[in-house]
Amino acid sequence: VFMQDDQLAVRLERLESRIAIERLASDYCHGFDKRDEDCFMSIWWENCIWDIGPPFGRFEGHAGIRAALHDALWPAWTMSQHVASNVVIEFQTSVRATMRCDVDCTGLLAGSSAATFVGASYQDEVEKREGSWKIQRRTVIIHYFNSFENTTLSKP
Amino acid sequence: VFMQDDQLAVRLERLESRIAIERLASDYCHGFDKRDEDCFMSIWWENCIWDIGPPFGRFEGHAGIRAALHDALWPAWTMSQHVASNVVIEFQTSVRATMRCDVDCTGLLAGSSAATFVGASYQDEVEKREGSWKIQRRTVIIHYFNSFENTTLSKP
Amino acid sequence: VFMQDDQLAVRLERLESRIAIERLASDYCHGFDKRDEDCFMSIWWENCIWDIGPPFGRFEGHAGIRAALHDALWPAWTMSQHVASNVVIEFQTSVRATMRCDVDCTGLLAGSSAATFVGASYQDEVEKREGSWKIQRRTVIIHYFNSFENTTLSKP
Repeated sequence: VFMQDDQLAVRLERLESRIAIERLASDYCHGFDKRDEDCFMSIWWENCIWDIGPPFGRFEGHAGIRAALHDALWPAWTMSQHVASNVVIEFQTSVRATMRCDVDCTGLLAGSSAATFVGASYQDEVEKREGSWKIQRRTVIIHYFNSFENTTLSKP
Repeated sequence: VFMQDDQLAVRLERLESRIAIERLASDYCHGFDKRDEDCFMSIWWENCIWDIGPPFGRFEGHAGIRAALHDALWPAWTMSQHVASNVVIEFQTSVRATMRCDVDCTGLLAGSSAATFVGASYQDEVEKREGSWKIQRRTVIIHYFNSFENTTLSKP
Repeated sequence: VFMQDDQLAVRLERLESRIAIERLASDYCHGFDKRDEDCFMSIWWENCIWDIGPPFGRFEGHAGIRAALHDALWPAWTMSQHVASNVVIEFQTSVRATMRCDVDCTGLLAGSSAATFVGASYQDEVEKREGSWKIQRRTVIIHYFNSFENTTLSKP
């Protein structure tokens, strides 16, 4: 009975880990789009890497990510809405996993009145440390990034 | 062993509650878009509030929601497709939780041939009563709501 | 205690089955969009049916699906991004379930420079055999399928 309980507890913890890891994908979107810096920063380990590639770049550590937000990314987007989907998590160990997902992003670039549509995939390495799951490395693969003529995004 | 079993059962119930709560976010979309009134109504407690804000309004109780569907919302949309994402659930107690998510909606407004794109977030208060989770209050925050010239939506 | 453990194990297995079934919805998108044939084929039982309806058709078995990919679908799409959402799973037994979800697809049809937007729903019958969940039948309902003038999709 003790052994079976232990096995159940391990399987249960794995499921709880999935919830915690999926939340990282969600809070990336909520934090970025709603300009909630605490929410956004909470998903990254201090020694993280956020590799967006062109046109934005590659950022390291909390200081690098904060600088990217304030100096490059939030100024670049007047408005953005990321919708993450197709989340697939695979565990290497009980404290290391990969996650991949796809994202549709709709937004307004600064200085533009045209809606911009971005399609991308994220490849993440996540780790559990001191009981918390966070992102160690996120690699962004952008599939398309286009503004459409004669469109705009505005509140009703 | 009994105590450990009890703890496992509590953790398991929490995970099952997450499934039930996420389903509310999904069935809102399925019910609304597929004009399945039973599905749509099944997500709301009788004394619920559905606060969409402009341009649609604020609706209370099952009667208010049914009236909104039949008198305002379904007539306003010839076609709609909501895609919910970034679901984050936080439990206050074993029977009360909040959920937030983002939604991309694509549709045709009545009388228009142009595709309309809506980006929104939902803030929900959900409660478990008599073994079922339903929405007590949904607040809609619309980020953009725009029709695009020279577009339309139609079956293949 | 043994009986309670058994009940917990059954509930836990149901949750693990949900993870496995949701992954089928995700790997459909990852496999199709990233042209990963192994990933795409891994979601289907050998005697499966993939019923897309017009304009694409109905395909049976692994051979039929492989032919559809190589002869019809991948040639038809220069680029595609499917975002699946609103996943609802219902179990008929411990080894049979239905899943439904909605999908936004953005892509480029071959020979066109215009972005095409597709909104669809999937109705799936899934089965567990020899410990694995796979799709027995997927029915696609396409709500709209439109290219927009003066748009395109391209890498940044």
